[in-house]
Amino acid sequence: MNVLIVYAHPEPTSLNGSLKDFAVRRLEASGHQVQVSDLYAMQWKASLDAGDTLAPRSDAPFHPSLDSKHAFENGLQAPDIAAEQEKLRWADALVLQFPLWWFSMPAILKGWVERVYAYGFAYGVGEHSDARWGNRYGEGTLAGKRAMLVVTTGGWESHYGPRGINGPIDDILFPIHHGILYYPGFDVLPPFLVYRTGKMDAERYATTTDALGARLDELFTATPIAWHPQNSGAYEIPALTLKPEISPGQTGFAAHLADAA
Amino acid sequence: MNVLIVYAHPEPTSLNGSLKDFAVRRLEASGHQVQVSDLYAMQWKASLDAGDTLAPRSDAPFHPSLDSKHAFENGLQAPDIAAEQEKLRWADALVLQFPLWWFSMPAILKGWVERVYAYGFAYGVGEHSDARWGNRYGEGTLAGKRAMLVVTTGGWESHYGPRGINGPIDDILFPIHHGILYYPGFDVLPPFLVYRTGKMDAERYATTTDALGARLDELFTATPIAWHPQNSGAYEIPALTLKPEISPGQTGFAAHLADAA
Repeated sequence: MNVLIVYAHPEPTSLNGSLKDFAVRRLEASGHQVQVSDLYAMQWKASLDAGDTLAPRSDAPFHPSLDSKHAFENGLQAPDIAAEQEKLRWADALVLQFPLWWFSMPAILKGWVERVYAYGFAYGVGEHSDARWGNRYGEGTLAGKRAMLVVTTGGWESHYGPRGINGPIDDILFPIHHGILYYPGFDVLPPFLVYRTGKMDAERYATTTDALGARLDELFTATPIAWHPQNSGAYEIPALTLKPEISPGQTGFAAHLADAA
Repeated sequence: MNVLIVYAHPEPTSLNGSLKDFAVRRLEASGHQVQVSDLYAMQWKASLDAGDTLAPRSDAPFHPSLDSKHAFENGLQAPDIAAEQEKLRWADALVLQFPLWWFSMPAILKGWVERVYAYGFAYGVGEHSDARWGNRYGEGTLAGKRAMLVVTTGGWESHYGPRGINGPIDDILFPIHHGILYYPGFDVLPPFLVYRTGKMDAERYATTTDALGARLDELFTATPIAWHPQNSGAYEIPALTLKPEISPGQTGFAAHLADAA
């Protein structure tokens, strides 16, 4: 199968760099084809702006989504954007690997999402009607592919626990898991997490790579997180709220799980 | 009072640009001093990297936090970083204004946080002991200052409601409110939100600016969101989990509110 790793860390000799190299070797040893978008090495342009289209619409000021649509539909996207979209089309699975900086992905990776996720490619796809609100949240251009996060953080696991001060890690990652990956159609696997990176030694590194290797071995067989697809009947349209009989009385991110309590 | 607006939108004639201009006029009319960091106009460097220090540590590969610490302590930060820190010291209140892109702030603003929030300035501040885990979450360099988000989104309010498909807006913004603003000490006000930006007309624009003006008028008097400060006794240290008697049985972001149910 084809695996795209989008990787965001500025230092090749870092823990993140080592884990990325390990992942490439493990996946290739399993017979997969691997491409890596090493965003820092590529000097990826992080900020979405008018330079992302080769020929802006002539009749209006720059508009992030309308100019993205125009460029996508007319083959006028900046070449770096089109190249990443092509890698996504090629991939059967996407791995986003990054250190958790200020409780989200690094800016350079956020800018990859913003620029590569063009209107017509990752959003603004499909019909809007009484029964459908576009192909998103479980449907879309990237449906049928899998995605998984590999995330490192200096904090302790307890800090990210159900009552931990940073908030539960599943909730911190929900906007990425559900809002960035499930949105254009990916089946999203539970994340692979490394805590307390400041306390990494040879022994922990060995157990960490063992665990990461096991997760990569089941990249195409593990059970994805089961959210309700948007157009499956679980949501009122156009309010896009859960119907009363779905997760009755429940609110918040976890209410969108198909197996919510 | 002194107000810093950090603003992230690529097009000056956009709704965001108009709201930013309105905010500057309103605040100045109230007698406040206003500075604007217009990140796109400044061509703000979004990606944190080894270029952020004028003289890297000589004994080791680049390390995001250790090199940040070294640069901050030795006056070796890139001038754009030091200038933004000086604006934060000057400010009595910070407004972050941005369109919600993929359920978070634009990459250029995330990169402002990552680069300006140096080790020793916004994290790694204060003692670590049995009773304290650094000056953070309610204490820190920026304690005594206020902060508020002004956020626009194309989605409907119901999409961001308690059972809305995107997740509740308060939960989507928690990593920014609590993790980026409360962390270095800001008192955080409820956000000002504009939904369905694609359906803005003159009438809605007038009511929107009226509402924004009212919120800016009470920037220094409104009641901040009341979370438990980290070192106030509400958390076990070093696990940093809420003590059993605090928000008993409750989990998730909202459990950290001092007035949690």
